[in-house]
Amino acid sequence: MEKKERTAIEPTRVENYPEWYQQVVKAADLAENSEVRGCMVIKPWGYTIWENIQRNLDDMFKETGHVNAYFPLFIPKSYFEKEAEHVEGFAKECAVVTHTRLEDDGKGGLKPGGALTEELVVRPTSETIIGASFSKWVNSYRDLPLLINQWANVVRWEMRTRLFLRTTEFLWQEGHTVHATQSEAEEETAKMLGVYARFAEEFLALPVIQGKKSETEKFPGAVSTYSIEAMMQDRKALQAGTSHFLGQNFAKSSNIKFQSSEGVEEYAWTTSWGVSTRLIGALIMAHSDDDGLVLPPKIASAHVVIIPIIRKEEQREMVETFVTELAAKLRQQYYVERKLVVEIDNRDMAGGEKIWQWIKKGVPIRLEIGPRDIENGTVFMGRRNLAPRDKKSVGVEEFLTTVTQLLDEIQEDIYNKALANREANSVIIDDKEEFYRYFTPENEENPEIHGGFAWSHWCGSAECEENIKNELKVTLRNIPFDSKAEAGKCIYCGKASSRRVIFAKAY
Amino acid sequence: MEKKERTAIEPTRVENYPEWYQQVVKAADLAENSEVRGCMVIKPWGYTIWENIQRNLDDMFKETGHVNAYFPLFIPKSYFEKEAEHVEGFAKECAVVTHTRLEDDGKGGLKPGGALTEELVVRPTSETIIGASFSKWVNSYRDLPLLINQWANVVRWEMRTRLFLRTTEFLWQEGHTVHATQSEAEEETAKMLGVYARFAEEFLALPVIQGKKSETEKFPGAVSTYSIEAMMQDRKALQAGTSHFLGQNFAKSSNIKFQSSEGVEEYAWTTSWGVSTRLIGALIMAHSDDDGLVLPPKIASAHVVIIPIIRKEEQREMVETFVTELAAKLRQQYYVERKLVVEIDNRDMAGGEKIWQWIKKGVPIRLEIGPRDIENGTVFMGRRNLAPRDKKSVGVEEFLTTVTQLLDEIQEDIYNKALANREANSVIIDDKEEFYRYFTPENEENPEIHGGFAWSHWCGSAECEENIKNELKVTLRNIPFDSKAEAGKCIYCGKASSRRVIFAKAY
Repeated sequence: MEKKERTAIEPTRVENYPEWYQQVVKAADLAENSEVRGCMVIKPWGYTIWENIQRNLDDMFKETGHVNAYFPLFIPKSYFEKEAEHVEGFAKECAVVTHTRLEDDGKGGLKPGGALTEELVVRPTSETIIGASFSKWVNSYRDLPLLINQWANVVRWEMRTRLFLRTTEFLWQEGHTVHATQSEAEEETAKMLGVYARFAEEFLALPVIQGKKSETEKFPGAVSTYSIEAMMQDRKALQAGTSHFLGQNFAKSSNIKFQSSEGVEEYAWTTSWGVSTRLIGALIMAHSDDDGLVLPPKIASAHVVIIPIIRKEEQREMVETFVTELAAKLRQQYYVERKLVVEIDNRDMAGGEKIWQWIKKGVPIRLEIGPRDIENGTVFMGRRNLAPRDKKSVGVEEFLTTVTQLLDEIQEDIYNKALANREANSVIIDDKEEFYRYFTPENEENPEIHGGFAWSHWCGSAECEENIKNELKVTLRNIPFDSKAEAGKCIYCGKASSRRVIFAKAY
Repeated sequence: MEKKERTAIEPTRVENYPEWYQQVVKAADLAENSEVRGCMVIKPWGYTIWENIQRNLDDMFKETGHVNAYFPLFIPKSYFEKEAEHVEGFAKECAVVTHTRLEDDGKGGLKPGGALTEELVVRPTSETIIGASFSKWVNSYRDLPLLINQWANVVRWEMRTRLFLRTTEFLWQEGHTVHATQSEAEEETAKMLGVYARFAEEFLALPVIQGKKSETEKFPGAVSTYSIEAMMQDRKALQAGTSHFLGQNFAKSSNIKFQSSEGVEEYAWTTSWGVSTRLIGALIMAHSDDDGLVLPPKIASAHVVIIPIIRKEEQREMVETFVTELAAKLRQQYYVERKLVVEIDNRDMAGGEKIWQWIKKGVPIRLEIGPRDIENGTVFMGRRNLAPRDKKSVGVEEFLTTVTQLLDEIQEDIYNKALANREANSVIIDDKEEFYRYFTPENEENPEIHGGFAWSHWCGSAECEENIKNELKVTLRNIPFDSKAEAGKCIYCGKASSRRVIFAKAY
C-alpha cells in the first residue's frame, strides 16, 4: 500500500466526494445546520461571499436598467391557486402560516391561537404576490417595460437538504419584469441569462453552458425556462441560475393588462429570473481541493492574509509594526471596485497551524513575514491555488505593485482549471450502450466520481427523458444555445433528432 | 376667508397630519399597502432609500468590528418559551407555521397538510435562535467578543399598521454580541446607541436624544434598553433605534457559557440592537413639507434631476446632447463615497408637471435646461428645501465644481430645520396642571399638532408613568444621558426626583 500524502480535508474528493464537501464547508467555517430542520446558519466567512456576490450582481442588474423593490413574505393561499401549474409545482413543499399568536395551552406551555381565515404561504417564489402589485402598477404602454428585482429569503420545504445546495430557507434574488410584446420579454429572458453567465464566468470563475430547459424541467407556470449549467469536480452538473419566459400565463392569472399605443387593452408579457446562495455551493464544489476551500479573488471574503512569524518576544514590536504598515498600504488599493481586504493573524498560536487554517479558508494570497524577511525587504508568499509548500520570496515593493495583477492571474487560473475539468469530462456519445456505460460507476468503492457531460441526440419526447432519468439518474441539463443543428438519432429511442443536448447527473 | 396657497400635497400638515403623511408616501411613490394584511410593498423609490441606509450603516458596523451572518427565519416554539419575559412580550403577535404543504381539500381548493410536530414561529426578533448558535460558537474567552449583525425581515402581527411606521413584516438589522464581562457588554450597548445617533444625525439629518428607557418600556427580556428619540413635525416622538443590554438573561436561557482565562466556566453577557425601515417613516415625517417628500442628500434616491425644456422639436437634439453630457460629468463625481445619482426626465409630458413630480419625490437639486440656458452657459436650478419658485441661474462650470458643497449645505439646512423644530417645541415643565394643559389639544379642528417634548421630573415609579400614559396618552420617551442630576419633584405624584426625563406623545 502506498503512503498517502496528508491532506487538510479528510476524506479527499476521490475517497468520498459528498463527505469531502461537508468537511470543506466546516473547515472553512462557512455555514452549519441549525436545529430548525433544513434551515442553515450562514456564518460570517460564508456570508461575506454572499455579500460580494450580491454587490457585483446588483451592479450588473442596475447597469441593465433594473431597480430593486421589496414585496411581502406571505402569499395568500388564493393567489397561489390562480395559476394551476404554478401551484402544482410548489404546493407540496411550502410552509403554511395558520395562526397569528401563541397562547396559554393550560398545561404550562403555548399553543397556536388567532386562526387566520385565509392561510398564508411563506413565499417559495414571488410571481403571484408581485403580480398582484404589477396589475396595479401597469396601466399603459408608457408604464412598460417594468424592470424590478428583489433580494429576499424564500422557503421550500425540502426533504433532503445539504448546506448551500438545497436548504429549506435560502437567500436569493428574483427579477420580475413586464413587457408590451412577446419579443421584448423573450429578449429580456435571454439578456438576464447572459448576465448570469457573465457573472458566473467573470466573478465565480465558473464556466457555464447557456441553454434551454426541456418541457419536463421548466419552471412551473413558465412557457420556457433557460439555465446556466456548470460542472462540479465529481463531474455532476449544477444548475447555477435560471431565467424564465412566462408568456402571458402570469399576466392572465394576475390580471396584468395595459393599453397599447393604439388604445387596445392587452395582457402583458412577463419574465422572472433568479440565482441563490446555491452559487456558494457551486463555487465550493467547482474549485476547492483536498486542502479545503479555494476562493476566486473577485468574490473572496479576504484577498490577502498576513501571518507574522515571531520566534522571540523582542522581535514582536518590529514585526507587528511592519505588518500593520504593509496591510495599510494594501488596503488602499482597489481590486474590482472593492478595497483590498487584508487579514492580519496575530493570534497566540503556532504559525503552522495558522497557515493551515487560512489554506482551509481559501484566501488567495498568504504572506508569512518574519524578521529575516523584513531585513531582506521581502515577503514570503503562498498562493492558494498552488501546492501549500510552493512558496517564494518576493520583494515588498514588487508585491505591492503587482498584487492586483497577481489576483487577476489567480482568478484566471481557477477559471481555466474548472474549464479544463469540464472539457476533460465532456464527451460526444451516439451509442446507447456507451451512454449507459458512461453513466455507470466502474467500481463500488468510488460510486460518486464517474460520468460527465454527455452531448447526445434527443428526439424531444418527455418519455425518453423520463426513461433515462429513471434508469440512470441522468437528466437532460439543457439544450445549449451553441449546439449547432445537426442530424442524428435519439440516444434512447433512435428517432430523428436535429441537435445535441447535454445529459448529466446533477445536484 | 383668506385665499389658500395651492400645495402639492392635500391635506397640509396643519390640516390633517396623519393623512398628509399617507399622501406624501403616495405622491413620492415610496410604498403601498399589499393585500396581505399589514404587509407593505416597498416601491423602488422607497427601497433605494433603504439601500442607502443599509450601505452606510453597514460600513459603520464594520468599522466598529462587526461582521454579518444569517440565521433561520423560523424559531421552534420551544426556543421561544425559554425566556419567560421574552415570550410574554412577543407571543401575542407572531405568525405561526403549523403545516408544510397544501393539499387537495376535495372541494377544488387547497388545505394545509403535513402538520409539524413542533410549530415554528416566524422570527419577530432573533435573540433565541441566534443564541442557539452562539452557545455552540462560544467555548473559551478566546472566542469573545463575538460581534455579529444580521440584515433580515421580521414579522410582528400588528393590529393597526401604517406604512413604514408600523407594519406586520418589516426589514431591519439586528446586532447580537457576546462578551466576557458585564462592563464590556454595557460598553458595547452604549457604543452602538452612539453609532445610531451619529447615523441619524449625519445621514438622516435627524437630531436625536440618546437615553435610557424606563423599566416599563424596555425590551422583553433585557436588563436595560437605550433609545434614540427624534421629534416629528407634529411634535410627537419617534423611537428611531434601540440598543439592549441583556445581562446574562439570554446567555442563561440559551446556555452561552465560556471558560474564562482563569479556567472557570461562566455565563456570557450579551447585547442586541436594531433599527428598521421605520427610519424611512421618521425621515418623511421629520423633513417633508406641504409639497411632498424632502430627502437629505446623503441618503437620497437621486441627488440631481435634469428636466430638459424643449419648446420646438428642432431644439431637441441640441438640448438632449447637452443634458446627457452634463449628467455624465456629474455622475463621475462622488458624494459620501457614492457616485452622484442623476436622473434625466425625457418623458413626453409638460415641463411643469414633471417639475412638480420631482418636487413631490424630494430630489435635493432640480435643473431645468433649455436652449436659452445652453446659450448662456447656465443651468436654472431649484433646491428642494427652498420654495418651489425660488430658483436661480448658475453657470454650468460653477455648478459642476460646487454641486457636492451645495448638497452638504442642503443636508445641513435640513438638519438645522429639524433641530429648530425640536428646540421650539421642547419645554421644561414643573407644574402638573401646566403639564396637562401642554398635552391637551387646544381645539378640536386640529387635534394632532400640539404638545412637544416636556422635560419634567419623575420619581421613578411605574405607577406614575402608567397614570400619565392612561390619562394623556403621553409616555416617558427616555431618561436622556445629558439630563444633569438636579433635585426636583415628580410631575405626577410630587415625590422627590433627581433628574428630568422626556415625556411626549409618540409613534
